[in-house]
Amino acid sequence: MITTKNTTVGFIGIGVMGNHMARHILNAGYVLHIYSRTRSKTQDLCQQGAVWQDSIAQLAKQCQVIITMVGYPTDVESIYMDSDGILENAGSGTITLDMTTSRPDLAATLYETGQKKGIHCLDAPVTGGDIGAKNATLSIMVGGEVEGFTRILPILELMGKNIHHQGPAGSGQHTKMANQIAIAAGMVAMCEALSYAGKAGLSLEKVIENIGQGAAGSWSLHNLAPRIIKQDFSPGFYVKHFIKDMGIALESAKAMGLKTPGLELAAGLYAQLAAQGSENEGTQALYKLFQE
Amino acid sequence: MITTKNTTVGFIGIGVMGNHMARHILNAGYVLHIYSRTRSKTQDLCQQGAVWQDSIAQLAKQCQVIITMVGYPTDVESIYMDSDGILENAGSGTITLDMTTSRPDLAATLYETGQKKGIHCLDAPVTGGDIGAKNATLSIMVGGEVEGFTRILPILELMGKNIHHQGPAGSGQHTKMANQIAIAAGMVAMCEALSYAGKAGLSLEKVIENIGQGAAGSWSLHNLAPRIIKQDFSPGFYVKHFIKDMGIALESAKAMGLKTPGLELAAGLYAQLAAQGSENEGTQALYKLFQE
Repeated sequence: MITTKNTTVGFIGIGVMGNHMARHILNAGYVLHIYSRTRSKTQDLCQQGAVWQDSIAQLAKQCQVIITMVGYPTDVESIYMDSDGILENAGSGTITLDMTTSRPDLAATLYETGQKKGIHCLDAPVTGGDIGAKNATLSIMVGGEVEGFTRILPILELMGKNIHHQGPAGSGQHTKMANQIAIAAGMVAMCEALSYAGKAGLSLEKVIENIGQGAAGSWSLHNLAPRIIKQDFSPGFYVKHFIKDMGIALESAKAMGLKTPGLELAAGLYAQLAAQGSENEGTQALYKLFQE
Repeated sequence: MITTKNTTVGFIGIGVMGNHMARHILNAGYVLHIYSRTRSKTQDLCQQGAVWQDSIAQLAKQCQVIITMVGYPTDVESIYMDSDGILENAGSGTITLDMTTSRPDLAATLYETGQKKGIHCLDAPVTGGDIGAKNATLSIMVGGEVEGFTRILPILELMGKNIHHQGPAGSGQHTKMANQIAIAAGMVAMCEALSYAGKAGLSLEKVIENIGQGAAGSWSLHNLAPRIIKQDFSPGFYVKHFIKDMGIALESAKAMGLKTPGLELAAGLYAQLAAQGSENEGTQALYKLFQE
């Protein structure tokens, strides 16, 4: 069983999300080794006792559990697969956990490559954003061997609440893609509905009150529409990150021979939105496209 | 003030919804006159004390409040505007309430025509389906003069819970259209997400558990996805009725110069679904299109 006594945890990728997540692990009493592309972002954690490592290889050699939370699938691939990466340098028996939203097929490749070296690779992307990361209320969707999942569960529980093993390697990423697909055309729906109501001269607040509890209700309508009404387009979830995720979903759906016209529409509209300079705004900025 | 003593209520259109709605009014103690295209559907209500009228004109002459709940905007137009219809035969001071989901511009026309004769026309479409009608928990979105709304509110409260005056004539219909637009691309999103998850070999139940509480959550995901999983495509809301509503929304959006690519996509997919024989199934049958 994993305990704070017998397990050194490594965390690679100390961004907005990673910072919160790593802190929960540190606060629970684990020895925590960290590495990030920008060292300055790790200062706070190091002052609280996290151990900086100069390279991924060095970190990998000393940790029994390695968590990665980085930007793009290409980053994941290089962090795991390069000769100075995790899989070449971690010891047999190590459990790795990629919490980046990344390609399901890459997760499967990491799993297979790891298996040859006795390394258990899990994919475990999250939803809930920086607030979920801060409050340790992330939803975590896990793919990989159930034994690895069960062993690492105590660490996952430090970061999230709604944690499920979804199936073999890649299943966590597939679940996250299903999540993004449900959001994609859903955002189009919500922004169109509000735009229609606005154009018809209605009070958006009153419309939401009247339709929000019924079949038109959604998380987006309850949480993002009020921001739209205030013209608040600041990022809860960045347009540019959503575009990245939809790109992965489109590729993955195509590889499975699945038609996703709603996702395609949303991806096209968000690309248009980014081209107009909104890539660093929140996903609710899609509303602007309908105001032209 | 409207009371059961001073007000005779007329109800035109005793279908699945109308039957429940009219019964609540009857049960409250109002004298209720009814008319419907198919007289046999009114038998139950008549046995409970409703008064059958042989024509719309005859009904209109005797009622101070007239409620209509019929199929299509063309039906609404003829019931109100024909020479043997409501507006030619109702007395000055009558309040009419069209609860059909119909064209916003038609609601405005009825209002203007009524105004010349001292008849107050309100549009008041609903959401909540037959269960909402049965349990008197409909959401009701009302357009027209606020004075008329206030006067008729005691009768609306017999049928629904979430009742709002949204603005001038047509605003109730516009609100309903915003509702349908939010549902339209939202259904595409939900069906695509489930289809993706299924194709990826995941357990749909587990996926919903993992993503349902976050940003991907929606009424459709919580209420219709479980039916899809059981392959239950029976109608809560008919595909054919949704197609009718989306047609009105498309026309209305176009008239306002609003782009609605999500609505267009959904309307096209539902037309395809109906062409394959699903027009009498529930809207969740859209899932089938993605299984091909």
